[in-house]
Amino acid sequence: MRILYHLPMSPYARKVRLALAEKRIPFDLRVERVWERRHEFLEINPAGTVPVLQEDNGLIVADSYAICEYLDEAYPDTPLLGRTLADRAEVRRLVGWFDGKFAAEVTRNLLYEKYQKRHLNRGNPEASAIRAGYQNLRPHLDYLGWLAETRVWLAGPSISLADFCAAAHLSALDFIGDVDWSISEPAKEWYARVKSRPCFRPLLADRETGVTPPAHYADLDF
Amino acid sequence: MRILYHLPMSPYARKVRLALAEKRIPFDLRVERVWERRHEFLEINPAGTVPVLQEDNGLIVADSYAICEYLDEAYPDTPLLGRTLADRAEVRRLVGWFDGKFAAEVTRNLLYEKYQKRHLNRGNPEASAIRAGYQNLRPHLDYLGWLAETRVWLAGPSISLADFCAAAHLSALDFIGDVDWSISEPAKEWYARVKSRPCFRPLLADRETGVTPPAHYADLDF
Repeated sequence: MRILYHLPMSPYARKVRLALAEKRIPFDLRVERVWERRHEFLEINPAGTVPVLQEDNGLIVADSYAICEYLDEAYPDTPLLGRTLADRAEVRRLVGWFDGKFAAEVTRNLLYEKYQKRHLNRGNPEASAIRAGYQNLRPHLDYLGWLAETRVWLAGPSISLADFCAAAHLSALDFIGDVDWSISEPAKEWYARVKSRPCFRPLLADRETGVTPPAHYADLDF
Repeated sequence: MRILYHLPMSPYARKVRLALAEKRIPFDLRVERVWERRHEFLEINPAGTVPVLQEDNGLIVADSYAICEYLDEAYPDTPLLGRTLADRAEVRRLVGWFDGKFAAEVTRNLLYEKYQKRHLNRGNPEASAIRAGYQNLRPHLDYLGWLAETRVWLAGPSISLADFCAAAHLSALDFIGDVDWSISEPAKEWYARVKSRPCFRPLLADRETGVTPPAHYADLDF
């Protein structure tokens, strides 16, 4: 069986899990404690990061960008990157936005400081980073809400990797209770729509030792 | 004429310039001082980053990942992402490596601290970041050298976006004199090969006000 090496709280692994599930590609999840730098894992991905996809034919695809592009090429049913050149440019721009800009300005400041540092005993969270993360979340949710109001889905009329990428980051932050959904009603409404898709269910069932998600985390009508 | 909004020292813009030139796609360069947050520019790319490609037909492609994938789809001659699924996974893994891991561990610590901060009057460089950047450069050059020794080009038998991506980061660092090429002879030999390609010439002719690149920067037999 196809294996996805992951960590439950990794937004990049969450994005791939959503893409796989939306495409109805079956896979087994395997947790990889990347900080242990397991020799066999470094052999399949020298970067030492998750997600890594291992296909039944032995093909290894490392890096969430490489995996998502691979999935749309290898399993073209249910395309997630858009159909026309312009559609695809827009989906990828937004994937770049959430995996790059949002990750640097929000995810890293909150998830890394508040969750990973404590989890991995890497020192105390920096208050200034956490403050910046909360401050930056606001314009990002506003932008997301604006996109959701002017389009059916974030990149256009069809659901795409842009939605799953944004939802992957937000769901990890939501798990640790860090998303103030009152900032943007359209963003909240969009998230409720993504969250209610069947592909999202396994993420809502995730439970991490030592962290209890807020009551609304798995609630479809939050 | 097609326009590429860029900054001469942006590794992401350099990667796109190399890809365009390798594919012999003509384009005009336009410097975008992103820190000025020009209104018309934010309208075409709300992220406020370079590179942004503007096609003659009006199509805007923002984000270097989106641009490079777009170029290989819109101009499939001289493919830069590889041919088979496995080739493409490997090219993209390495693009993810250099634009993600290398950028975070090396480029950011050196280019941002030493060059951008001074250029943009954003405070003094942090000595600890610069030290980390130099320390991290060593294993990265070793890895690059190992790839270059075991393959013809970084991702396999053909030159690919992986080579241009790695060379884009290293050329920006080389411009500010931050690459100790004595660390890895095979990495240096690989860089000399990339650098001698016609697509590289415009980058070697770049001159930034206030920065004089080291003598070997534009020397093909450095």
